[in-house]
Amino acid sequence: MHYPEPISKLIDSFMKLPGIGPKTAARLAFHVLTMKEDAVLTFSKALVDAKRNLGYCSKCGHITDIDPCHICSDKSRDGSMICVVQDTKDVIALEKMRDYNGLYHVLHGAISPMDGIGPEDINVSSLLVRLQDETVQELILATNPTIEGEATAMYISRLVKPSGIRTTRIAHGLPVGGDLEYADEVTLSRALEGRREL
Amino acid sequence: MHYPEPISKLIDSFMKLPGIGPKTAARLAFHVLTMKEDAVLTFSKALVDAKRNLGYCSKCGHITDIDPCHICSDKSRDGSMICVVQDTKDVIALEKMRDYNGLYHVLHGAISPMDGIGPEDINVSSLLVRLQDETVQELILATNPTIEGEATAMYISRLVKPSGIRTTRIAHGLPVGGDLEYADEVTLSRALEGRREL
Repeated sequence: MHYPEPISKLIDSFMKLPGIGPKTAARLAFHVLTMKEDAVLTFSKALVDAKRNLGYCSKCGHITDIDPCHICSDKSRDGSMICVVQDTKDVIALEKMRDYNGLYHVLHGAISPMDGIGPEDINVSSLLVRLQDETVQELILATNPTIEGEATAMYISRLVKPSGIRTTRIAHGLPVGGDLEYADEVTLSRALEGRREL
Repeated sequence: MHYPEPISKLIDSFMKLPGIGPKTAARLAFHVLTMKEDAVLTFSKALVDAKRNLGYCSKCGHITDIDPCHICSDKSRDGSMICVVQDTKDVIALEKMRDYNGLYHVLHGAISPMDGIGPEDINVSSLLVRLQDETVQELILATNPTIEGEATAMYISRLVKPSGIRTTRIAHGLPVGGDLEYADEVTLSRALEGRREL
């Protein structure tokens, strides 16, 4: 014997989560035993609800419990700008900033020939449809500053160029609070390249 | 808006677990969305089952889904030895060793006057009952090597002494694979004190 069955099953479930090994899983499972039954039921329900009630917005691809999502259906938002990101988590990061008032488009990935992910595997075609229908004036390419992200940004900007819509790329450079000494060469070269007059 | 409601509820639940902050909770919650519905349902059920179907063994106080627990009801075990531990997790640690074939007694805590935990707050009285009823010959005190654990071990050994049952304390010393250089003074002094002839 090691663990009684109910707890070993719970440990197995915790271990399926990313970054959680057997020791952490056991610690979490034992913590659940000390929690109030109400809290455990809430947790249990939250898991199923999140899985069942969430889907992707048919317009922008962001994760949502209503369709179209809160952002797409918000009339106070500026429909002339679309910010293209790789992942739903990127939308949340940008929303936390509270600076951007335009719309989003989530690609759910980036072009990566090494992994066999081509332009047809990411959510690009629906972006092109949006660009035809709407009064979009600017497309901000906010894919990650990685090889895949850059390639995706280049691909989309070439695709959109003929339509005359302005395409921009978010700036690369030193992160605020970062240290020049520890910055890698590529970031430094981008920071220098993108210097602005004060 | 930040997160859609179902996911923010799930994040809240994850954040109630020990060692999980807002960022990890969000990462775990988003992972749940990518899991198969089956796995999520299993997880959800495991949480409730663990909370509802587990209790403490009426004999030894170990966590169990049957009463008496697997260990207490195992006839092949040596009933003449009882190993006293602070926590159910200690039983599991000792069981992993596969070396000990006696029974256990879980105190669910240790005497700690600083925290207002006295002998009556830990599972000692039932231990004394077991010592009267059973053919116990040795009581191994395996409480933690901390001030509270030591105090508890001392307290129990004095309590049991009149009955003539042999009481022993697990050895303190350098952990196997440890480094003498980094050992603290108390551990070193205990290691020296407990030296044995080769």
